Amino acid sequence: MRAYRMTGWGTQPQTTTAEVPSPGPGQILIRVAGCGLCRSDLTMPHIPRAAGEKMGWRMPFTLGHETAGWVAELGSGLRSSDLTLGEPVALVSPASCGECDFCLRGRDSNCMAGLSGRGYGRDGGLASFVLAAKRDVLKLGSLDPLTAGPLTDAGATAYHAVRRAIPRISPAGTVVVIGAGGLGAFAVQFLRALTAATVIAVDLLPARRSYASSVGAHTVSPDVPRRCGADAVLDFVGTDDTITAGLKAVRPGGAYGLIGSAGGTFTRPWFGALPRDGEVFTFQGSSIADAREVIALTQAGLIRNEVTLYPFDKITTAYEHLSAGTLPTRAVITMR
Amino acid sequence: MRAYRMTGWGTQPQTTTAEVPSPGPGQILIRVAGCGLCRSDLTMPHIPRAAGEKMGWRMPFTLGHETAGWVAELGSGLRSSDLTLGEPVALVSPASCGECDFCLRGRDSNCMAGLSGRGYGRDGGLASFVLAAKRDVLKLGSLDPLTAGPLTDAGATAYHAVRRAIPRISPAGTVVVIGAGGLGAFAVQFLRALTAATVIAVDLLPARRSYASSVGAHTVSPDVPRRCGADAVLDFVGTDDTITAGLKAVRPGGAYGLIGSAGGTFTRPWFGALPRDGEVFTFQGSSIADAREVIALTQAGLIRNEVTLYPFDKITTAYEHLSAGTLPTRAVITMR
Amino acid sequence: MRAYRMTGWGTQPQTTTAEVPSPGPGQILIRVAGCGLCRSDLTMPHIPRAAGEKMGWRMPFTLGHETAGWVAELGSGLRSSDLTLGEPVALVSPASCGECDFCLRGRDSNCMAGLSGRGYGRDGGLASFVLAAKRDVLKLGSLDPLTAGPLTDAGATAYHAVRRAIPRISPAGTVVVIGAGGLGAFAVQFLRALTAATVIAVDLLPARRSYASSVGAHTVSPDVPRRCGADAVLDFVGTDDTITAGLKAVRPGGAYGLIGSAGGTFTRPWFGALPRDGEVFTFQGSSIADAREVIALTQAGLIRNEVTLYPFDKITTAYEHLSAGTLPTRAVITMR
Amino acid sequence: MRAYRMTGWGTQPQTTTAEVPSPGPGQILIRVAGCGLCRSDLTMPHIPRAAGEKMGWRMPFTLGHETAGWVAELGSGLRSSDLTLGEPVALVSPASCGECDFCLRGRDSNCMAGLSGRGYGRDGGLASFVLAAKRDVLKLGSLDPLTAGPLTDAGATAYHAVRRAIPRISPAGTVVVIGAGGLGAFAVQFLRALTAATVIAVDLLPARRSYASSVGAHTVSPDVPRRCGADAVLDFVGTDDTITAGLKAVRPGGAYGLIGSAGGTFTRPWFGALPRDGEVFTFQGSSIADAREVIALTQAGLIRNEVTLYPFDKITTAYEHLSAGTLPTRAVITMR
Repeated sequence: MRAYRMTGWGTQPQTTTAEVPSPGPGQILIRVAGCGLCRSDLTMPHIPRAAGEKMGWRMPFTLGHETAGWVAELGSGLRSSDLTLGEPVALVSPASCGECDFCLRGRDSNCMAGLSGRGYGRDGGLASFVLAAKRDVLKLGSLDPLTAGPLTDAGATAYHAVRRAIPRISPAGTVVVIGAGGLGAFAVQFLRALTAATVIAVDLLPARRSYASSVGAHTVSPDVPRRCGADAVLDFVGTDDTITAGLKAVRPGGAYGLIGSAGGTFTRPWFGALPRDGEVFTFQGSSIADAREVIALTQAGLIRNEVTLYPFDKITTAYEHLSAGTLPTRAVITMR
Repeated sequence: MRAYRMTGWGTQPQTTTAEVPSPGPGQILIRVAGCGLCRSDLTMPHIPRAAGEKMGWRMPFTLGHETAGWVAELGSGLRSSDLTLGEPVALVSPASCGECDFCLRGRDSNCMAGLSGRGYGRDGGLASFVLAAKRDVLKLGSLDPLTAGPLTDAGATAYHAVRRAIPRISPAGTVVVIGAGGLGAFAVQFLRALTAATVIAVDLLPARRSYASSVGAHTVSPDVPRRCGADAVLDFVGTDDTITAGLKAVRPGGAYGLIGSAGGTFTRPWFGALPRDGEVFTFQGSSIADAREVIALTQAGLIRNEVTLYPFDKITTAYEHLSAGTLPTRAVITMR
Repeated sequence: MRAYRMTGWGTQPQTTTAEVPSPGPGQILIRVAGCGLCRSDLTMPHIPRAAGEKMGWRMPFTLGHETAGWVAELGSGLRSSDLTLGEPVALVSPASCGECDFCLRGRDSNCMAGLSGRGYGRDGGLASFVLAAKRDVLKLGSLDPLTAGPLTDAGATAYHAVRRAIPRISPAGTVVVIGAGGLGAFAVQFLRALTAATVIAVDLLPARRSYASSVGAHTVSPDVPRRCGADAVLDFVGTDDTITAGLKAVRPGGAYGLIGSAGGTFTRPWFGALPRDGEVFTFQGSSIADAREVIALTQAGLIRNEVTLYPFDKITTAYEHLSAGTLPTRAVITMR
Repeated sequence: MRAYRMTGWGTQPQTTTAEVPSPGPGQILIRVAGCGLCRSDLTMPHIPRAAGEKMGWRMPFTLGHETAGWVAELGSGLRSSDLTLGEPVALVSPASCGECDFCLRGRDSNCMAGLSGRGYGRDGGLASFVLAAKRDVLKLGSLDPLTAGPLTDAGATAYHAVRRAIPRISPAGTVVVIGAGGLGAFAVQFLRALTAATVIAVDLLPARRSYASSVGAHTVSPDVPRRCGADAVLDFVGTDDTITAGLKAVRPGGAYGLIGSAGGTFTRPWFGALPRDGEVFTFQGSSIADAREVIALTQAGLIRNEVTLYPFDKITTAYEHLSAGTLPTRAVITMR
């Protein structure tokens, strides 16, 4: 089968062929419909072998961690009452063990097993077929597997951020979303579906501000509003500037969530500058429950999931567009 | 009556005389038994007039915001069924309005009226008598008003920190308390009373480590333990070093609380360095409910409140000892 | 001034005259625009003197606890920066002391002082003028005081129920509202504003089902759906039948809230029949924070507040309509 | 091997022999040290075949769902880094699937797969050997597997009740535990370890009151104290009388938890009688996280786990003692 793979440490991924895998006990073989691309894919050629091996990565592996498709084969121990052949499904993006103290409390996004997973150290979804455990399979029902992949990562990560902030959002309050790209535009929608707050989307690109408006942002702006007394600021950028402006925008008792990995910091004294009696949080990834809730909200018609489709033989072009930072929506490679 | 007062902007406070105040409608006159000293008192001569006036401070005013004594006179509208003459009481330390969105939700420590209050902009407890509204009067029952003052500020602030952290503390987990002075030693005790966690107290001074042990710390150390996977770190110091070491000690999903005002910060990129999926919080002061719960826990015999007593005419000596940072316990001025 | 008053124990209320009250220190005189009627008004002639006096009620008193109007006069100690003459305001419905353990934690709807209040034991809003403390005054901004009264009681009580249930409502879950009259129709709207759940409104009256649809219920039905696995059931009726059907409709971990005072019970063994690992709750009234949030959501255009207006001289007719149980919306007496 | 088994529907269990099972992929064979007896064992001969089969029970099966022992053999796919041969372990008591919406949120005690499990429909621990999945294996560390079994069921169920009540328990409040037998005595200890509340244990048997005192109850009584304004009442009996007395003992905003399966109810109108603005809850079983935390608290020396040991050939006598309701502590059958 076709696959887009890392074939060695420090090298660029390439289109190649691989064997169609065979499902072991409790595993499911998925025929991939579409697989989303993520900026984190671009960093993989730069990961040193030592660091990769420490996380348990094995070469070669297929990229792609925003995968959806159809059930193609059930491993031993699985029954057709669990999943039916041809059923559309998406795959949970972060890996988790199901047995540690985090997993047993629904906090599987903090599981140590998450260091290596489908598309980062193990074979992912940029191939005709991929394997998954039953626990990682999300039933799509009426949703189209061609485009559903980004719901499991861009969608679920944005959802996790919103869920963290909700306890601090007043019923008729204000939330600022910094960065209205893939994740931010999802966050705007989750906030509209789950709260009554006024949502302000901040982005430098007019096209993203426009999309944010179209999915429900009450106000859009190129800058974080000053003295807006926000209940929560969700920062999907994460530079020094957005951190500083974001912290200043939070009311006492409010939340500042850092999701953007731009590497920013805040060099002024913390005491008196961080949101008074509020909370600052940051995280990576999302839980399986997050992904299930994102699917459910999308099935209920509450979330729009626009993507830009590329055929598999244009994958290099798609990554170039992603890298340029000008894509209006998430890029998805069609594998049919 | 005798009083220790700020008599002008930018000047040192001094012992002087003042008129015994008369309680207005709904007010109570308190005869002061003892009043605790706080490091924040030392900063008041350095507050510029403009900043003070912006906070609503009025000169002259009496210092002292850790006050306890006896009911001396009831203003109009108050009945002896509310409070009886001679009854021992302590006074809530932070000011609050009782009517704003914060106060109406029990988050009165974030009330804007807290910028000026008893002992910071208004007449405080370092005098023979002081006024309070009924809402600010805490019944002491069997507790001694000579020493109870620090419970309302050092005690209640430490309690607020512990209460913030409790949702993230595992039943048989670990909590690190950095700085085992006045507030930190209270925090150790609240943690022992309200959780089953192992408490590690960190302080450079052997005398404080020894006191922390005596009030229940399971382990004491001059350094923050590395890789201890703490559920929570409560930092009552707040330098660059304690912030860095404290953040590193927190497990995924845990809490880092900054209460110490030493002005530290953290200059590395936040993403990946702040506790993963946990929370960072900071605050000042405490709520009236906090103070009531501290009094109740102390009445129940669960909290030890050791103080160092000084007579009123040794107040300058007491502040010198406080300033030197060598006091083993909170300093309290006796006003009887 | 005109007033509709209880003039003695065990007698029917009557239209009479009363002196315009004068605001004491910290009080505000309100010129009433409109005052809503409540079924609890109908029970007051049946309250025995002993029971009434035990609750602190004093005869005579004016009925009406859903009051809104304009600021007419400020008592001493209040400033025009607090409230301006002519400003439209509504009045908090339940009484509370502001100083007890409940009030200090934002749970003022459980304050013991709530046993007697404006319209039940003290002079209420069915008069040209009424008094209120500043803490009980809700600024209406652009909302019309003629119709705003029911927001403070029917609205705020329904809101309290929804707020209690929200932690147990899944993002794409189901909530059943039993009884789509005054309170239930508000509950439907709060659920739509604050959750993404599917809302099923149950009522025997077609007119109420129709109104419930028009304010956002996804489904309406004369019966509680069986095996619907609801995250929450809010029962604004409270008969044996609705309690039994409501409990059965709740999924494991869900909530059943009883707000209707019809006096029902449940006679089967509780173990195994109450929602497994969920919660059953019941309450009366609402907090000041609830009322403020209801006003804010209504100002934001998220809540429709339809009422049936009656002039003051038709008050007997209005109570007859209320008593017959056929009013489509809340009855409000206009006092202008 | 020896086993105590249900051999048919509607018959009494009997001592018999069974084949030593062989661990499948991912399974672990446990050599049983001790297995606790539970009153629910006594009901199994009375379960009709239809009801049993509906829950997925298969005949014959070995009784016993409070099991601890040593790792005897690892199935394929498990490594010695996971578990070592001879390591002492206890087994999670309730069954769960690990993949449903409940399991993925740490609420596995509500999983539908819990209807049949180890000792109820599947082979349990009253045998020389028993099988378990890795997810169900609890490492005991220094705890003795001879006596640890009851921690997983009697202990974990009591812990779940305490954990449900904790958010409603004031720092210096009061909790009433009705029934100080196996579960109740554990509840007293968890309350002492995790809260600062005063614990009142209620039991008709002097021996149980005495044991409750010895494990930390502040007060013991044969009756539920009237007007005690409890923050929480945990009812491990569950008759009409304890439900009625328990509800009356709860303060506004408090919790009443029903864990006892005596089949009681409450026939008075709910509105006005259930704890005002508090919560009523009931449940069965416990989560894996509950069991892990119970083990951790016991390892930390905070929980005493006294049992009455019987050799396997005295199992009938042990069940007779259990049935008579006079056992001071949990009965455990030694299988060594």
